[in-house]
Amino acid sequence: MNGAESLVATLIDQDVDICFANPGTSEMHFLAALGENPKMRSVLCLFEGVATGAADGWYRMKDKPASTLLHLGPGLANGLANIHNAKRASSGMVNIIGEHSASHLKYDPPLTSDIEGLARPLSHWVRRAESADSIAWDTAQAVAKASEHPGQIATLILPGDTSWQQTGAAPVLPPPVAAKRKTPSVERIEHVARVLRSGEPTLIILANKATRGAALEKAGRVAAATGAQLGSQFFTARIERGAGFVPISRIPYAVPQAMAFLKDFKHIVTVETREPVAFFAYPDKPSLLKAEGTMVHELVEADEDSELAFDMLLHALGATSVSAIVQPRIQTPVPTGALNPTSIAHALAAALPEHCILVDESLTTGRESIGLTIGAQPHDLINNMGGSIGYSTPVATGAALACPDRRVFCMVGDGSAMYTIQSLWTQARENLNVTTIIFANNTYAILKAEYANMGAGTPGERALSMIDIDRPSIDWQAMAKSMGVPSVAVDTAEGFYKAMVNSAREPGPCLIEVKL
Amino acid sequence: MNGAESLVATLIDQDVDICFANPGTSEMHFLAALGENPKMRSVLCLFEGVATGAADGWYRMKDKPASTLLHLGPGLANGLANIHNAKRASSGMVNIIGEHSASHLKYDPPLTSDIEGLARPLSHWVRRAESADSIAWDTAQAVAKASEHPGQIATLILPGDTSWQQTGAAPVLPPPVAAKRKTPSVERIEHVARVLRSGEPTLIILANKATRGAALEKAGRVAAATGAQLGSQFFTARIERGAGFVPISRIPYAVPQAMAFLKDFKHIVTVETREPVAFFAYPDKPSLLKAEGTMVHELVEADEDSELAFDMLLHALGATSVSAIVQPRIQTPVPTGALNPTSIAHALAAALPEHCILVDESLTTGRESIGLTIGAQPHDLINNMGGSIGYSTPVATGAALACPDRRVFCMVGDGSAMYTIQSLWTQARENLNVTTIIFANNTYAILKAEYANMGAGTPGERALSMIDIDRPSIDWQAMAKSMGVPSVAVDTAEGFYKAMVNSAREPGPCLIEVKL
Repeated sequence: MNGAESLVATLIDQDVDICFANPGTSEMHFLAALGENPKMRSVLCLFEGVATGAADGWYRMKDKPASTLLHLGPGLANGLANIHNAKRASSGMVNIIGEHSASHLKYDPPLTSDIEGLARPLSHWVRRAESADSIAWDTAQAVAKASEHPGQIATLILPGDTSWQQTGAAPVLPPPVAAKRKTPSVERIEHVARVLRSGEPTLIILANKATRGAALEKAGRVAAATGAQLGSQFFTARIERGAGFVPISRIPYAVPQAMAFLKDFKHIVTVETREPVAFFAYPDKPSLLKAEGTMVHELVEADEDSELAFDMLLHALGATSVSAIVQPRIQTPVPTGALNPTSIAHALAAALPEHCILVDESLTTGRESIGLTIGAQPHDLINNMGGSIGYSTPVATGAALACPDRRVFCMVGDGSAMYTIQSLWTQARENLNVTTIIFANNTYAILKAEYANMGAGTPGERALSMIDIDRPSIDWQAMAKSMGVPSVAVDTAEGFYKAMVNSAREPGPCLIEVKL
Repeated sequence: MNGAESLVATLIDQDVDICFANPGTSEMHFLAALGENPKMRSVLCLFEGVATGAADGWYRMKDKPASTLLHLGPGLANGLANIHNAKRASSGMVNIIGEHSASHLKYDPPLTSDIEGLARPLSHWVRRAESADSIAWDTAQAVAKASEHPGQIATLILPGDTSWQQTGAAPVLPPPVAAKRKTPSVERIEHVARVLRSGEPTLIILANKATRGAALEKAGRVAAATGAQLGSQFFTARIERGAGFVPISRIPYAVPQAMAFLKDFKHIVTVETREPVAFFAYPDKPSLLKAEGTMVHELVEADEDSELAFDMLLHALGATSVSAIVQPRIQTPVPTGALNPTSIAHALAAALPEHCILVDESLTTGRESIGLTIGAQPHDLINNMGGSIGYSTPVATGAALACPDRRVFCMVGDGSAMYTIQSLWTQARENLNVTTIIFANNTYAILKAEYANMGAGTPGERALSMIDIDRPSIDWQAMAKSMGVPSVAVDTAEGFYKAMVNSAREPGPCLIEVKL
């Protein structure tokens, strides 16, 4: 076998069985190896940011890394923004970056760049394969690194000659092991137990793996036993949410509202996260959002086991038999009439089918009203952790591949959707169950609010022209058609509701333009 | 004034009067300053790769840098691929990267990344503004760096507080000076004169500023006086070409054809470039393309003055009164019938209007037949110097803004067009005279050829599925409509010719889908 075949065989051995690819000339042997191995699913993306974002979506739903195939330094560069988002979401990922052969690099051909330099700022692990013989070991290490808790970004640079040179059979490597999660310290558990027993108002902020599964349920038991409130940052990698799940309050995005939310808590307890920080700095607003005098207590560090921590905490509290209070189902009547954040949220609450996945990049339209969907059917909610716009349509693509039996709703503003709109093509190609909901307000509405928040005054006509995107307004139905995705436009709440329900009836992607 | 106003005022003072922008929250004061200064043209782009590619196109036609405005590390990352292409084209550019305030950075908010780390691999100059007071100096230095010969990538990081803090009036800075180009060494001139006088077969390879203007004309006189042949690399930043210009032979892209082209030359003389190197490495092909025994002589280094070098060389040759042989106009009959590389080239040759600009990213469709357009009306030909796909539609956008009285034809493969397709929206918004020609063969055709060139065998069905992009095939007329660009589809040579002629009749953008 050649190096590329060894690489693909090792990925499969280590349980990485999907590759989001945008290949080029230097990756032809890798492409051949992907094609020859029926256990590897290869998904073609027309832009690298789609590939890396899809790998993020895959990880969020599978808790195991996908691989990407990118073409030299510039191909990696095109994928970096969504690697940033994935890194901030603690998603593991194995990036394979094609590269010139060493013998060719010294002539500095046009596509040469400092790939390590580009990779390092956003990777936890970077290695250049030295030969076809070493590739299996390099690959196994990349997968091990990506599979740690929290997930890591591993980037393996693959020079052409290491790909096409012959090597022996891939070495027998140890099977992949689940990431070891560290045990939280007993001192911290006991300290937080004392805080909770004090009865003083306490917010427990959950993040990463603590917002779902057994960890969330046990956090709910702690809350029930102590009266503490469960909260999340405004953005969370994935929350299990809706009827039957322990509900979590979301700290608002805007600084004044976040401060108002936090001001009455005497204690903040953090779980796989840190104390709340403003997303941006503003001239006249603080960066830290807690009230003066609020004390912050770390319960679970990012690499620790939050489920175990809540077990220990329940034990320390003598509350192992307390039950969590879960969210009851709230039947929301189908709204009618004008579309606004509230009617949109009501339509969502009424329409979301059981076990769907909601990928949210709705920014201005959705962010203050999504709370109204808390009593919807049980679902997963996914947010943008890195703040780089253009995460949602790729993440929805990867989530749909990870969970083929679940419908994915991707809520995205029109401005945001344009960054990685090529996702629609992959959704059509793979016939993925993604409903893309475009909130078309023809403006970077978030920037209008931020202009004032920043104290930059009222935008004049010329500044406004850099925020409005209504000349021309984007024809979203034509956009969907161009990439083979059926679409519908709606301008009423009942129309939006119906379009969502209809979209879930047939397999495959569709796009709903919500005209605001 | 505040720091942002000082920055914009300094850009204007230093003759940087256009900004390709994709702003975010941290850049609101900069946006306000752009809006307040009527001398600055601000062009909104819906994706950062459009902004940096447009700045490249602007430089290629103006020989002076544009500025870009990008949103923190991920915004820069999205622009890096076209920064790579610009860097390889020796295009100068001033990138302004918004950043969190220093007081906020220490809390590691979501959008935080190592901006310097991301910028350095592809920038010649990187600086973080320290205060509103220093911004004018930082900006002037960035412009000076970008304006050097060859053009440089200058990246200025702008923390929010340096933008909103007050400062005095922008200091009076020295006016911008034209980049000093170094004088070539007399020894090298005399050495090359001896080579040329030998009468042995010699190829003079011209690049960067030597493929146009007085330098090209003087190179033509050297050729006429000595019998040397003028050539270019396969890719050149900008060539003045067609009837009335000194013709240059293009070294072919494919390794065997390039070697065949070069094999009879005893000498290669390089002007602002280096000896020909294969674009990619192949298992069984060399990296260097010249024949064994061919000698390479450097006449003009990248930072030297090629016009002056040819003056000196003509003097050394005693040939100051020799005239150059220029390309005669070749009237090409309008082709009819099937579309193929030859009929496409004939249609181009017949249709191209005088002084148009041809941005070429046609890859398989155009690259072997573009030579047939050598006798067309005089025009500029622009190529992708860095090899990162997705350069052409942004470069065409920037070139059209630089030369509003000239029609730009952007020839691009369907696969390539999808990387930065958001360019169409800016073209519609600014009503730019760009005719985008999509060669729609529904495949990454270049990769099919490269698969075999690489010795990866014949692609199997699964490997082919990663090269073909026909499921779904992209509906280019719908794509154009979605962003407000009128379009037409053609499937005959005469239809293609007519569509090109029609597109130049009315101002504004249009898209021609060439169905292959």
